[in-house]
Amino acid sequence: MSETLALSSEDLAFLGPYLPPSSLDSPQHPDGPGAACKLPFTTLTYACSLDGRISLAPGTRTALSGPESKSLTHYLRLHHDAILIGVGTAIADNPGLNCRYPGATLEAQPRPVIVDPKARWGRHGEVVRLVGEGKGLEPWVLVGEGVEAVAGSGKLEGVEVLELKTTESQGARFAWREVFEMLAKRGVRNVMIEGGASVINDLLANERDIIDSVIVTVAPAWLGEGAVAASPAKSVAAMTDVKWRQFGADAVVCGRLPR
Amino acid sequence: MSETLALSSEDLAFLGPYLPPSSLDSPQHPDGPGAACKLPFTTLTYACSLDGRISLAPGTRTALSGPESKSLTHYLRLHHDAILIGVGTAIADNPGLNCRYPGATLEAQPRPVIVDPKARWGRHGEVVRLVGEGKGLEPWVLVGEGVEAVAGSGKLEGVEVLELKTTESQGARFAWREVFEMLAKRGVRNVMIEGGASVINDLLANERDIIDSVIVTVAPAWLGEGAVAASPAKSVAAMTDVKWRQFGADAVVCGRLPR
Ligand SMILES: NC(=O)c1ccc[n+]([C@@H]2O[C@H](COP(=O)([O-])OP(=O)(O)OC[C@H]3O[C@@H](n4cnc5c(N)ncnc54)[C@H](OP(=O)(O)O)[C@@H]3O)[C@@H](O)[C@H]2O)c1
Ligand SMILES: NC(=O)c1ccc[n+]([C@@H]2O[C@H](COP(=O)([O-])OP(=O)(O)OC[C@H]3O[C@@H](n4cnc5c(N)ncnc54)[C@H](OP(=O)(O)O)[C@@H]3O)[C@@H](O)[C@H]2O)c1
Repeated sequence: MSETLALSSEDLAFLGPYLPPSSLDSPQHPDGPGAACKLPFTTLTYACSLDGRISLAPGTRTALSGPESKSLTHYLRLHHDAILIGVGTAIADNPGLNCRYPGATLEAQPRPVIVDPKARWGRHGEVVRLVGEGKGLEPWVLVGEGVEAVAGSGKLEGVEVLELKTTESQGARFAWREVFEMLAKRGVRNVMIEGGASVINDLLANERDIIDSVIVTVAPAWLGEGAVAASPAKSVAAMTDVKWRQFGADAVVCGRLPR
Repeated sequence: MSETLALSSEDLAFLGPYLPPSSLDSPQHPDGPGAACKLPFTTLTYACSLDGRISLAPGTRTALSGPESKSLTHYLRLHHDAILIGVGTAIADNPGLNCRYPGATLEAQPRPVIVDPKARWGRHGEVVRLVGEGKGLEPWVLVGEGVEAVAGSGKLEGVEVLELKTTESQGARFAWREVFEMLAKRGVRNVMIEGGASVINDLLANERDIIDSVIVTVAPAWLGEGAVAASPAKSVAAMTDVKWRQFGADAVVCGRLPR
């Protein structure tokens, strides 16, 4: 595994305003006085090509961004309590989801959270291996209520299964707000959402008010029309508070979503 | 019509290396000693959203980039002898295709070139109006050999019709090399290719060796999955010589295509 390099002080100054408030010790999003629960600060982040694609084909992992952008990912992981991905990414990419930024300790590791309503994830691979090696936290797997008994993969060593109710309107879906409320209740103050396509597109189209910060890396390549697109079902107007910066051959854009 | 502002000296320094060689007085691309004809220097340029879309729907014009990026377009037009677009864009956008950069004279105007194999363009609208007002050059309309007599719109005032042979393999198509050879023969030293989607995608997928410079503006918005994509049929690896710079809320990336 190639070494992750530290970012420059200019890189850090660029990212600073878009990171979760670090002094914060209580969850974000006070939804008014009668709000049932506060939500964690959320950062939506992914890497895409100039044609907005995040992998060459469904179910495959595509090396898209350069080493500088990779350092960015690990720096962001250092600043978040949890990393959330969909089960499609867990299966396709077999990601480690730990933080390999220089000097990152076990205490600094983010909590991997895998959204897996039908308990499709095999519960082995990189994430679980890193727990065994003491290099990452035990992942939380969010499955639909009652699903575990029927479809659960059974293997529980190195993972924690959390049940959450689903709506059956469009398959077994969680309400995103309830996902983040559950995380907040478990002490998660901020979450980095790392994909994949259907998670990104769903949040952009339908749950913009839950997203606090957006950080996208754009690589100067085209994956082509057959590739997996980070492109929501509805259009989303330009972000506000926008800053761009070159990282190697890539660019990183930070901003806030329009409400 | 809103005023086009001048770019900063930093903007100009950023763009400089990607502009056509200005001292040049002969066409580019010497294809070896026996080459039939040299091709003009070509710059492929367009504006897209983070999901790589260039307009909300086919046949519509979408305001995507901000005033700074618009200045960039007019600055680029100042540095090119010709602007080429497909007939789809001519019909959908009714673009003026002239240069409105501060101080641009009639002599500095680029030649509009419309690729219109079946002579579908109505030959009126902004481009023709600007010719009448002395604010733009007469456009050249490239039609298929023999098409003009049958399908030509008849109106010839303010436009010049050029015939070029087509292949019938995938409809009436020109070979791009022949399009640019024809322009070179007519004294065009450099061409800015402004779209639309099918022109961009065809060149990126199949004619990378004809493109000398690529300049893409990325707006921090998502037009959504139903929008028109600048996404070639095959993937294109990362560009080389890549530079990014923020223009307003947008970013501009310049580079060279991999061969
Ligand atoms: N370039 C990048 O930054 C990046 C980052 C991550 C992933 N990727 C790529 O993205 C691709 C995977 O994307 P994907 O769309 O297939 O997978 P995904 O978004 O990771 O996971 C999708 C699955 O997550 C579950 N899910 C999503 N939203 C849910 C909700 N509201 N409630 C309950 N469950 C929900 C569903 O599982 P069920 O189907 O079981 O219901 C859904 O099919 C891979 O090719 C990967 O390489 C790229
Ligand atoms: N954001 C931007 O930077 C930008 C810039 C320009 C355009 N646009 C958008 O792009 C959309 C238009 O795209 P489009 O794909 O419909 O149109 P287009 O690319 O402008 O024109 C396509 C047409 O040009 C002709 N053509 C293309 N390649 C040819 C070849 N090799 N030989 C002969 N003829 C060729 C064909 O005409 P026939 O069908 O008659 O054969 C083809 O249908 C519009 O919505 C416009 O707003 C956006």
